[in-house]
Amino acid sequence: MLKGKIAKLAVSDVRFPTSLEQHGSDAMHANPDYSAAYVVIETDDGLKGYGITFTVGRGTEIENEDGRGEKGHSEPPRSGMKRGHKKEMLKEGYPAYTTSCAWLGYSDQQLTQLCSTALTEGWTKFKVKVGADLQDDIRRCSLIRKMIGPENSLMIDANQRWDVAEAISYVTKLAEFRPLWIEEPTCPDDILGHAAISKALAPLGIGVATGEQCHNRVMFKQFLQASALQFVQIDSCRVGSVNENLAIMLMAAKFRVPVCPHAGGVGLCELVQHLILFDYISVSASLENRMCEYVDHLHEHFKSPTVIRNAHYMPPKDPGFSSEMFDESVQKHQFPHGEVWRSILEKNGS
Amino acid sequence: MLKGKIAKLAVSDVRFPTSLEQHGSDAMHANPDYSAAYVVIETDDGLKGYGITFTVGRGTEIENEDGRGEKGHSEPPRSGMKRGHKKEMLKEGYPAYTTSCAWLGYSDQQLTQLCSTALTEGWTKFKVKVGADLQDDIRRCSLIRKMIGPENSLMIDANQRWDVAEAISYVTKLAEFRPLWIEEPTCPDDILGHAAISKALAPLGIGVATGEQCHNRVMFKQFLQASALQFVQIDSCRVGSVNENLAIMLMAAKFRVPVCPHAGGVGLCELVQHLILFDYISVSASLENRMCEYVDHLHEHFKSPTVIRNAHYMPPKDPGFSSEMFDESVQKHQFPHGEVWRSILEKNGS
Repeated sequence: MLKGKIAKLAVSDVRFPTSLEQHGSDAMHANPDYSAAYVVIETDDGLKGYGITFTVGRGTEIENEDGRGEKGHSEPPRSGMKRGHKKEMLKEGYPAYTTSCAWLGYSDQQLTQLCSTALTEGWTKFKVKVGADLQDDIRRCSLIRKMIGPENSLMIDANQRWDVAEAISYVTKLAEFRPLWIEEPTCPDDILGHAAISKALAPLGIGVATGEQCHNRVMFKQFLQASALQFVQIDSCRVGSVNENLAIMLMAAKFRVPVCPHAGGVGLCELVQHLILFDYISVSASLENRMCEYVDHLHEHFKSPTVIRNAHYMPPKDPGFSSEMFDESVQKHQFPHGEVWRSILEKNGS
Repeated sequence: MLKGKIAKLAVSDVRFPTSLEQHGSDAMHANPDYSAAYVVIETDDGLKGYGITFTVGRGTEIENEDGRGEKGHSEPPRSGMKRGHKKEMLKEGYPAYTTSCAWLGYSDQQLTQLCSTALTEGWTKFKVKVGADLQDDIRRCSLIRKMIGPENSLMIDANQRWDVAEAISYVTKLAEFRPLWIEEPTCPDDILGHAAISKALAPLGIGVATGEQCHNRVMFKQFLQASALQFVQIDSCRVGSVNENLAIMLMAAKFRVPVCPHAGGVGLCELVQHLILFDYISVSASLENRMCEYVDHLHEHFKSPTVIRNAHYMPPKDPGFSSEMFDESVQKHQFPHGEVWRSILEKNGS
C-alpha cells in the first residue's frame, strides 16, 4: 500500500505540430496537432505518477465517470493456458497493424513509398483513411491492395464522415478491395445506425469497427447488444481509465467479439499495449481477428517507448503504465510558451 | 442583418447556493448549487447578446456540435391553425407542471405544505423525486397522491439512479400511485435499456421520460427509433442550442411522441418556454400529454422572468430569448469572489 500523501500535481498542455506534415490527417481532421494533457502527481515520500489524455490540440478533456456497476462476465482461461500465453507474448509479441502508411493527406507517391518500406519491415496489416472523395479512395485502396497482395489485410477508416445510407453505399463501392473492416462509418453515438450498416455489409464480408469515441461502457454494452460492431476498438484515454476498459473487454468476451484497440495518438500505443496483453493473457485467449493499431510517431518522447518487432508489440519490460514523458519533451512542447510553439507562432506572426 | 462586429465577450461563473435549503436535491445530486456559465457579447455598435448554460456548480460546459445533417420532417399545421394556436397561447398559456413541491431532501411536512399551497394556486401536475429509498418513496408518493386526488397528474423522477432490471422492479412497486411517467430511470446513454424499461412498464400505463442529459439529436433519433421513451424532454442548454432542439422537436413530431421540456435550472424556464411555444404553434399543434416543467426559484435574477398564470406559462412579451440577467445578480453571485460566495466561504472557513 502507498503511505505518502499527494504533495504536488502538475498539468501540462503538451502539443506536437503534427499537422505541418499531415501526419494524423483523416476525413474529419484536416490539420490535427497531436497533443496531450499530461499530469504528474508527486507524493511527499518521493513517488511520482504520470497520466496522459490524448487530444488533437483543442485542450484537455476530462471524463467524469460515475462509479455505478455494470454486469459482465467471462470464463478466464486456466492458469496453465495463461502461462503459455505469457511465454508466447514474451517471445513473439502481440500482432499490430499500421496506420502510418495511408493518412488522408499523403500523396500517392508517399503512400507507395511508405507501404513499400512497411512491407520490407514485415507489416502485413494496413489501414487506409477514406471518406473525403470516393474516386480518390478507389485509387488509393487499389494502389495499396496491389502493393500488399491478396493475403495481407487492409482496413478502411472513415472517421465518422457519413450518414447511415451513405456509409453503406460508399463502402459497397470499396468492397472489391476486400477491407476487413470499415471503421467509424458514421456518428459514433449512432448505435442503431451502426447496426444497420453492420447488417448491410455482412454479406460483403466487411465488418464494422468503432469505439475510440465511445465515452463509456454503457455505449459499448449497447453496441454489443445490438450487433452493431464486429471489432471493439477500446481506447486507453477516452473512457474512465483501466477499470472501465476492463469492463468493456469482459463484455466483448461475453459477446465473443474481438478487441482491436485504437492507438496512435501521443502515448496511446504506450498505454494500450498493457490492456491488449491483459486481454490476450487473461480474457480472450485468442488472436483470431485480433490486432492492435500502431502509428510510428512521437514515441521518442517517452521514457519507455513501445517496442515493435516484426510488426508485433513486444511486452514492455519497465514497471508502470509506460506513460512517463521526458521532461525536455514536455518543456519544449508546452503550448503556447514552449520553444517549439514559440517558434511556430512567431513564424505565423501571431 | 447585423452590421456591428463583436467588440467584447464576457463570461461569468454565476452560482446560487441552492444546496443550503435542499432546493434541487435528487437521487444523484444531494447538494447542487444551481449555477450558470453566463456569456455577454457586445458589438461595436452597441448591441448586446446574452447566453446561458446551466450547471450544478461544477463549472462551464460547452457542447461542441459538428454541423452534419440529420433527416426529419413534419407536416406543419396550416396558417389558420397557427393563428388560432397563437391566440390560444396568448390567452391561456402553455400547461406547466411543478417540481418545486417534492425535492428529495424535503421533509414530509414541507411536501405537505408546498403541495397544499400549489393546489390552491391551480397546479394540477406534480413531479416527485424518487430513487434513494423505496419505503421512503412509497410514503412520499402516497402522501402526494392523496393530497392531489385521483384526477391530477403525478410524475416520478429517479435521476438515473437504477440499473435496468432494478428500474423495472422499483417502478412496478410505485405503480399503485399511477405515475404518468418515470423520468431518467437509468443511465441516460442506455437507449436499449430505456427500450426494455418502456416495454416492461407499458402494461402498467407508465411511460418513460428522458432527454435532459441527451447530448445531441443522434441520441434522440435512436431513443425514438427504439421506442425507448414516451416523453421527449428537450433541454434548452444541453444540446447545440435552438437549431439542434428544432431538429429534435421535428423528429418527435414524426414519431408522434410528445415533447415535455426539462426546465428548472437557472434560466432554463426562461429559455425553454420559447421552444415549447414554437412546438405547439408550428409543429405539434397538440396539447395531448404535453406540459413543460416549472420550478419556482431564481427567476428574480432575470430581466424578463417567466410569467406563470394558473399553472400555465404565459408567452413572453419582451423581445429576445429571455436570457438577460440583472447586472447586480451576476456581480453578487460570481464564484468565488462575489459578495454571496465570499460570505459563505468565509463562514466555512475556506
